[in-house]
Amino acid sequence: MAPKVIENGVHLILGGARSGKSKFAEDMVIAAGGGTYIATGRAWDDEMADRIAHHKQRRGPLWATIEEPHDLCGVLERLDQQSEGPVLVDCLTLWLTNLMIGEHDIEAEIERLCALLPRLALPVLLVSNEVGFGIVPENAMARAFRDHAGRLHQRIAALSRQVTLVVVGIPMSVK
Amino acid sequence: MAPKVIENGVHLILGGARSGKSKFAEDMVIAAGGGTYIATGRAWDDEMADRIAHHKQRRGPLWATIEEPHDLCGVLERLDQQSEGPVLVDCLTLWLTNLMIGEHDIEAEIERLCALLPRLALPVLLVSNEVGFGIVPENAMARAFRDHAGRLHQRIAALSRQVTLVVVGIPMSVK
Amino acid sequence: MAPKVIENGVHLILGGARSGKSKFAEDMVIAAGGGTYIATGRAWDDEMADRIAHHKQRRGPLWATIEEPHDLCGVLERLDQQSEGPVLVDCLTLWLTNLMIGEHDIEAEIERLCALLPRLALPVLLVSNEVGFGIVPENAMARAFRDHAGRLHQRIAALSRQVTLVVVGIPMSVK
Repeated sequence: MAPKVIENGVHLILGGARSGKSKFAEDMVIAAGGGTYIATGRAWDDEMADRIAHHKQRRGPLWATIEEPHDLCGVLERLDQQSEGPVLVDCLTLWLTNLMIGEHDIEAEIERLCALLPRLALPVLLVSNEVGFGIVPENAMARAFRDHAGRLHQRIAALSRQVTLVVVGIPMSVK
Repeated sequence: MAPKVIENGVHLILGGARSGKSKFAEDMVIAAGGGTYIATGRAWDDEMADRIAHHKQRRGPLWATIEEPHDLCGVLERLDQQSEGPVLVDCLTLWLTNLMIGEHDIEAEIERLCALLPRLALPVLLVSNEVGFGIVPENAMARAFRDHAGRLHQRIAALSRQVTLVVVGIPMSVK
Repeated sequence: MAPKVIENGVHLILGGARSGKSKFAEDMVIAAGGGTYIATGRAWDDEMADRIAHHKQRRGPLWATIEEPHDLCGVLERLDQQSEGPVLVDCLTLWLTNLMIGEHDIEAEIERLCALLPRLALPVLLVSNEVGFGIVPENAMARAFRDHAGRLHQRIAALSRQVTLVVVGIPMSVK
């Protein structure tokens, strides 16, 4: 069977925790014959290490994997010059978490990403957690994170060719 | 007016807290002339007792009610041999909570339920809470619960004939 | 360009935190040539003051602004006799928070609002936070708030001409 072509441009794939958003994105890239996986997550504890191992095991051999917790833009720029296949970033919320923990300039990094994405020739699938549908968190850092994530998602959605919300494993088209 | 027939197979009805998901499911069964209600909730405090009383009062006389906090599969198997009417399970998230509190083998119970559901002749409506759209909880048990619920929902959704997300009392079709 | 007319009746606009729900509602009123903005939020700390200032700055000159943390019904009744333009209430969840903090009779206030809304000749846009898609909060006041908000949203949705869920800045039609 001929691989399905993934269209150029950005596809934002949102979902809640354990919604099947990563699997949905991975299946798209696998159906297209594989691609590059940019893992933004860092194994800072056993729970996280388990998650990363679980994701890696599921992906199998069609992937080149790059682990990059902070410099997402740098990796995307390099890939855009080297390859043609689709790139899957999993996920934006972990990247944002790493930027907050590392005390990076988050607004500047978001600007940089939003300026870069429309210029890429590569098809890019961006996976991210929708985290704003609960009660206001008591923790100030969690509130700040939620605000950053919401603004980032709005910016990315506006420049995306396609936005999908994955609910219990099933994709709902948002844009 | 002739009662509306509910199709065979599984209908997963998801919603947030106070979204109207139970009422939507109950109204479907009432329109079909009634059925069996499996309540998985346990009145472990006054708040919960109030919720259960509120639900019971709303349901009225068209229902046979079975209270079963753990052995959901056993009850469904028995009902499948005894009756033809629809069965409403309210809700999967409380069943999962009871399994966690009772230190049952959750993965095994989920496997058992997912193996059983496609074999039932009864129409089954499963109500459950979507809990994964907020910030990562600080409490490890809450994180584990969220993971179990998400995986359970994906499994059930994959085998369901119909999946509905209830938002502010209004059903949105997901599958 | 002729301003877009906003239809009479109630339009409930829901979204998560930083979902773009306020901006979506504001843009509708701006496209209609402006209207009255009822701000229910109170600057009880610096974080809140920043949010209010940010919203005000974005709105610009097409608006009359009324700040009213509690007596939303009184303001709507007065406006209905004085003006014809659309009214935007931002937001119901802050109004509910103010009622809880002020120990008002919340059920009575919700009844009053739901009795009033269908009688208004004005187009009314009500912005509110969907807060029920996370884990059950550990804090009892947060649980009570979530219950009030969910019931309020269901009541308002039932009487609304239109219900929109804003996801990452993009409106999804619910009703």
